[in-house]
Amino acid sequence: MVTSRREPLSTEPYKGVRDLYPYDMQVQSFIFEIMRRTVMQYGYAEYGASLLEPTELYLAKTSEEIVTEQTYSFRDRGDREVTLRPEMTPTVARMIAARKRELAFPLRWFSIVNVFRYERPQRGRLREHWQLNVDIFGSSRADADEEVLVLTHRLMTAFGAADSDFTIYLNSRKLYLALMQAYGLSDTETRAFQGIRDRREKISDEQFKREALSLTGNKLTVADIESLGKASLDFFLNHANDNVRRAAEEIANLAKKLAERGVSVRFDFDLERGFDYYTGIVFEVFDTNPMNKRSIFGGGRYDNLLDIFDAGEMPAVGFGLGDVTLRDFLETHNLLPPPKPSADLYLCRPDSEKSDYVHALAAKMRELGLRVAVDLSGKSIGDQIKFADKHGVRHIAVIGTVELKKGSFTVRELVSGTETTIPESNLDQILEIVKQAQ
Amino acid sequence: MVTSRREPLSTEPYKGVRDLYPYDMQVQSFIFEIMRRTVMQYGYAEYGASLLEPTELYLAKTSEEIVTEQTYSFRDRGDREVTLRPEMTPTVARMIAARKRELAFPLRWFSIVNVFRYERPQRGRLREHWQLNVDIFGSSRADADEEVLVLTHRLMTAFGAADSDFTIYLNSRKLYLALMQAYGLSDTETRAFQGIRDRREKISDEQFKREALSLTGNKLTVADIESLGKASLDFFLNHANDNVRRAAEEIANLAKKLAERGVSVRFDFDLERGFDYYTGIVFEVFDTNPMNKRSIFGGGRYDNLLDIFDAGEMPAVGFGLGDVTLRDFLETHNLLPPPKPSADLYLCRPDSEKSDYVHALAAKMRELGLRVAVDLSGKSIGDQIKFADKHGVRHIAVIGTVELKKGSFTVRELVSGTETTIPESNLDQILEIVKQAQ
Repeated sequence: MVTSRREPLSTEPYKGVRDLYPYDMQVQSFIFEIMRRTVMQYGYAEYGASLLEPTELYLAKTSEEIVTEQTYSFRDRGDREVTLRPEMTPTVARMIAARKRELAFPLRWFSIVNVFRYERPQRGRLREHWQLNVDIFGSSRADADEEVLVLTHRLMTAFGAADSDFTIYLNSRKLYLALMQAYGLSDTETRAFQGIRDRREKISDEQFKREALSLTGNKLTVADIESLGKASLDFFLNHANDNVRRAAEEIANLAKKLAERGVSVRFDFDLERGFDYYTGIVFEVFDTNPMNKRSIFGGGRYDNLLDIFDAGEMPAVGFGLGDVTLRDFLETHNLLPPPKPSADLYLCRPDSEKSDYVHALAAKMRELGLRVAVDLSGKSIGDQIKFADKHGVRHIAVIGTVELKKGSFTVRELVSGTETTIPESNLDQILEIVKQAQ
Repeated sequence: MVTSRREPLSTEPYKGVRDLYPYDMQVQSFIFEIMRRTVMQYGYAEYGASLLEPTELYLAKTSEEIVTEQTYSFRDRGDREVTLRPEMTPTVARMIAARKRELAFPLRWFSIVNVFRYERPQRGRLREHWQLNVDIFGSSRADADEEVLVLTHRLMTAFGAADSDFTIYLNSRKLYLALMQAYGLSDTETRAFQGIRDRREKISDEQFKREALSLTGNKLTVADIESLGKASLDFFLNHANDNVRRAAEEIANLAKKLAERGVSVRFDFDLERGFDYYTGIVFEVFDTNPMNKRSIFGGGRYDNLLDIFDAGEMPAVGFGLGDVTLRDFLETHNLLPPPKPSADLYLCRPDSEKSDYVHALAAKMRELGLRVAVDLSGKSIGDQIKFADKHGVRHIAVIGTVELKKGSFTVRELVSGTETTIPESNLDQILEIVKQAQ
């Protein structure tokens, strides 16, 4: 219905999402380009998918809180239940299950996609954000875990972060399960203990211990519970139980290989990351800056990828790196690029009616790889230069019939005022001048 | 609610949207990169926004059919009406209205974003597609129209299209309005005549003429109506009415300037493109191939951009180029790139337990700019090579302790079997070998 409105419309975006004006878009492109280039260096192939998914894709596996309270779900005009994807894993699982026979495993895949959660917007959390997803599908080897952690580290350094700017914490779901088994806990008790561990920061220490004891049928002592909180890897390496020792040795081996490749990781038995989902290693990268001491991203091994499709075994290990928390990190550590003007050179023209020469010259400069804007204002040359300056363009040239006759023109660097005359017969010279300033 | 499912989930995507497996993703990246590079050469700045918009943004201006029948709209958990954007113009109008005072006009802006329409999927039409939006905001000069048409042409040739592969048709809403005024039609009659013209292909010739006569109060004769259908620009250039002549001269001037810049356009008074929206030129690019004789994309001038915000005058001219129709065009004309493997080189390793040397070498190669995959399968060398081949990788090298001792390794081109030995001290050599094959 076309209504005739009287009240002017709001210019605000929808709650919890961002408008990307050119500088914010530059930052996003900078982030995506570094993500893409870095993972492609390791032989990863990019995939993508629509953000619209059948809701049933999330009913089986995604955490209950997310599906029932935090997704954007609705019924389409054809009465289909649709969800805006809250994460990428169910989608990629669907894609792999559909072509399992044609694809050659192990697969190295990545995507850079947006995901949606209905939650209260706050620092580091928006209703829509973009996420780099990096995974190896079809390998259960420690090699694959190692590569994913190397890439985790490599991504951080590709953005200019120093090793002291972040810490990679490592844990293992396998170790946790082996330990619970060593204590004689049933699956139900193990899950219940996990549940209370997840809530630990929301309750008092006393309540935590009391509930932990009761939920585990007193198979753990208060001393056990206390020791777990600060347990080093040595504690598990020296454990009486074979399975616990073996799981701890896997972590020790992985950490050793990573150290040989310049990647240091820190064991942390308290690291959980929604344990239900993971089956092997879990890891998380934290900012070390006291002003922004928060999780940047993380991942782990989840060998149950295709369970919801009844499509057989498919080991997987990977991580998801979101752009909102990453941008916060880069801002905190002063690693964002400065704004870049949208043109390398602004061509002013005294008489826009006679512009054949300007356009021909601009076309040649573009062939050299320059980004060239030709004035559209038709104002005085002084105003044209002011306009270029306002857009942050560093170099201008005035091109008119005089320049056409002379066969040369003068480039001016706006900040210093330095002028260089360039013969049209030697147009390449302009590249040096413009590149020098960058 | 976490249900325990028995039936396996479908692996199909949601109706009318696409999964992008690596080759499709490559094609999309190829398309976006050429779009981005081409418009950036002309000094355009990229912007972006979330696809979630308040529904009210579309109630004022978007065509009735689209809002009431074709949008994805729903109520969020906070009772806000939300719409997945069906087009980008209302969003960019919102962004410009919000920062009108800070921005320096004319602005050259572009975006590459996805848009959503609930409609029956068919060739060239999906429920989600991506679109390059290119606009000049804040210039009502013919210069701006000219640049937008040059860019339209330049984009097509940047994708490898020859001038004979497509035709750019040009018309003018201003010319149409001047002509209707010359016939003495009121605004209501003009709109009514437009309405019947839009439906012309759906009704008989006789019905069209009868309704046209009645809707225009018999101010047009049957001869007028017949002559309009095939009218050349000369018809309007020689018209008795001054405003009609002037509007026709503007088109003739524009076409002349475009011809000087190597862009030919064809006048077509029947070209309409939802005239209500446009205020000046309108244009549309058609494929000339008889197998795919359809519109690829189009645009025009719409000087009423900010009306819905009561934010004053803002002339605008631009176009939107969708990826689905463009890909069809590129496919028809054999202009899509061949599949590219996700690694330049695959490193096989006889003993993955002793891989320090392999990883160190791979790291050096990546620094040279190569995309290097290290084997993760741990299988026999023969199987590792087969795997590389299956992934389409052209070059492999086997790296083991022998190579570590020798300080050199052998690269094999899989198709020809050509082998080259490369000393580690001269690693750069590998670039030539790998690049040669590309």
